[in-house]
Amino acid sequence: MKSFPVLRIILCGFGVVGQSLSKLLLSRAEDLYARYGLKPRIVGVYDSKGSAVDSSGLDLNQLLQVKKKNGTIKKYRTEKSNVKVIDMISSLDADVLIEATSSNYKDAEPGMSHITEAMKGGLSVITVNKGPLALAFPSLTELATYNHVMLRFSGTVGGGTPILDYAKNSLQGERITSFDGILNGTTNYILTNMTNGMTFESALADARKKGYVEADESLDIDALDAAAKLVILANWIMGMKVTMPDINRTGIRDVTTEDIKHATEKKCAVKLIASCNRELVVGPREISVNDPLCVNGTLNAITFNSEHSGQQTIIGKGAGGMETASSILRDLLDIRQGMLNH
Amino acid sequence: MKSFPVLRIILCGFGVVGQSLSKLLLSRAEDLYARYGLKPRIVGVYDSKGSAVDSSGLDLNQLLQVKKKNGTIKKYRTEKSNVKVIDMISSLDADVLIEATSSNYKDAEPGMSHITEAMKGGLSVITVNKGPLALAFPSLTELATYNHVMLRFSGTVGGGTPILDYAKNSLQGERITSFDGILNGTTNYILTNMTNGMTFESALADARKKGYVEADESLDIDALDAAAKLVILANWIMGMKVTMPDINRTGIRDVTTEDIKHATEKKCAVKLIASCNRELVVGPREISVNDPLCVNGTLNAITFNSEHSGQQTIIGKGAGGMETASSILRDLLDIRQGMLNH
Repeated sequence: MKSFPVLRIILCGFGVVGQSLSKLLLSRAEDLYARYGLKPRIVGVYDSKGSAVDSSGLDLNQLLQVKKKNGTIKKYRTEKSNVKVIDMISSLDADVLIEATSSNYKDAEPGMSHITEAMKGGLSVITVNKGPLALAFPSLTELATYNHVMLRFSGTVGGGTPILDYAKNSLQGERITSFDGILNGTTNYILTNMTNGMTFESALADARKKGYVEADESLDIDALDAAAKLVILANWIMGMKVTMPDINRTGIRDVTTEDIKHATEKKCAVKLIASCNRELVVGPREISVNDPLCVNGTLNAITFNSEHSGQQTIIGKGAGGMETASSILRDLLDIRQGMLNH
Repeated sequence: MKSFPVLRIILCGFGVVGQSLSKLLLSRAEDLYARYGLKPRIVGVYDSKGSAVDSSGLDLNQLLQVKKKNGTIKKYRTEKSNVKVIDMISSLDADVLIEATSSNYKDAEPGMSHITEAMKGGLSVITVNKGPLALAFPSLTELATYNHVMLRFSGTVGGGTPILDYAKNSLQGERITSFDGILNGTTNYILTNMTNGMTFESALADARKKGYVEADESLDIDALDAAAKLVILANWIMGMKVTMPDINRTGIRDVTTEDIKHATEKKCAVKLIASCNRELVVGPREISVNDPLCVNGTLNAITFNSEHSGQQTIIGKGAGGMETASSILRDLLDIRQGMLNH
């Protein structure tokens, strides 16, 4: 059997997720080698202000310190400085690219270029950036197949909760016929606060104060984030070939205190539901408070309707740096397994 | 690559689960071959009154008809009649034994003998009978390893909901530190009815009328069923080596209307919780009605506490013939995959 103990990684984006991943790799290093024979080695890192490269492996402790002190990894002492990210991806010897820059749903850059450049160069890709998948899922999976590389994205839906893997692998031999999900924690937090009596404006202000709202609040409030996740689920689980324009999308701006009251009277709650049942729809909908899907606060939940095993609901935290980092680790193990099998 | 299209199966037990499995194999035959290259062939069946054997494959339609008409498969026209089950297991050419006779927690027979005889003869085993696992999980897995066969039991916990697979595979690379579950639908139904105002006696009577209670009601009410599932989870997910006597077990007989009232006043509900957190305990416990674990009716639910991905809850139907049959199908695919890899 072949052995690939060292897995060379290029990490694009060094925000909360990138830093959490570095901490996770540091704390789990011994265990990962003992249990899985895995030695992950980050050979290149890029953030919006600069890059750091070391083909023998960057010192993650130092990287974290430099980032904390300067807000960027630019000043990390490195063999080459100011390497452009695209040059880094195309020239550095590596096995996997981890794409963790911010999502945008206009052109999905810079993530889109990172991912395509990496796959063309024979690197497998793990993305937690939803933008490229939302705009081009079908063509990105084709590109991966064409280049004989793996594309993984466990962290894009459900954070650390392995929703995608559950539906794809744990339900092997079963057919999922439809699903409904609460896929955005921020809007769920706002709607929960409204159920408890707040107006939309004050609930949004509270969510902002807690740091739950994206810099571009439209991503949450206008349901772009939930729609992107629905695109990913529809492609990966249901085998559909769809992108953002295929989603019938409504945000929560127009949910009124009256709507909430009417729902409460019927023992229901208004939730932002992403639904795949022939049509792909994201929008506010009333569901019974006794429905397992009806979770509160920032929780995410999804209910799969299966042909023979009935309804199944998974509930978990949808976001968080360490949760998402743990999903990247699962993808790394999966990719390494794929390399061993070929 | 080797190919094993035909998988020869001995089926012990032809009650609800055995019959549901036969129906599922009939209805999915084409699809199973097209998608997975799998041709399951049942070569021997045993029920409490007799057996049927055909090494070229039993006719499942006929088998179901004979069972429906006579309450046993004894009158199925077969090449050999009245073959003793142990002789069938030791002499018939087969790949997999499916053990689907009733659970008992005294000596786990006849399931225990079926399983050990099969493994000694080189057959992989799928059991939905919890008895043998509850009394001898550690030694049965050792016996499987020693004989180079696979032992699978997805249907024993959560029915069609792949709880075991989720914890073992979907959370790969993650560490589960503890868990709490509602693992018995019958007691959950009774406790839900009590929350809605019924006494224990009338709630039990109602559950009996609905067909939810085992012939030996102690299995449900005294929490033997929930404890058996806790044994399986603790061994499989947490790597513990435990059996029934290691479980601190209390049933729901002593839950009073007063207990329920006190809980309701605190926005809590009394649930029969199976818990693994250093100690292994099954007993009635108050949990918040806002806890995702707090499901009603016959639903099952389990919450895993993981090191990096937070709390994750899975909710689904815990029982049902077709649900359990679908879990056997998953195990069959898993075993076939294992055969292909070796």
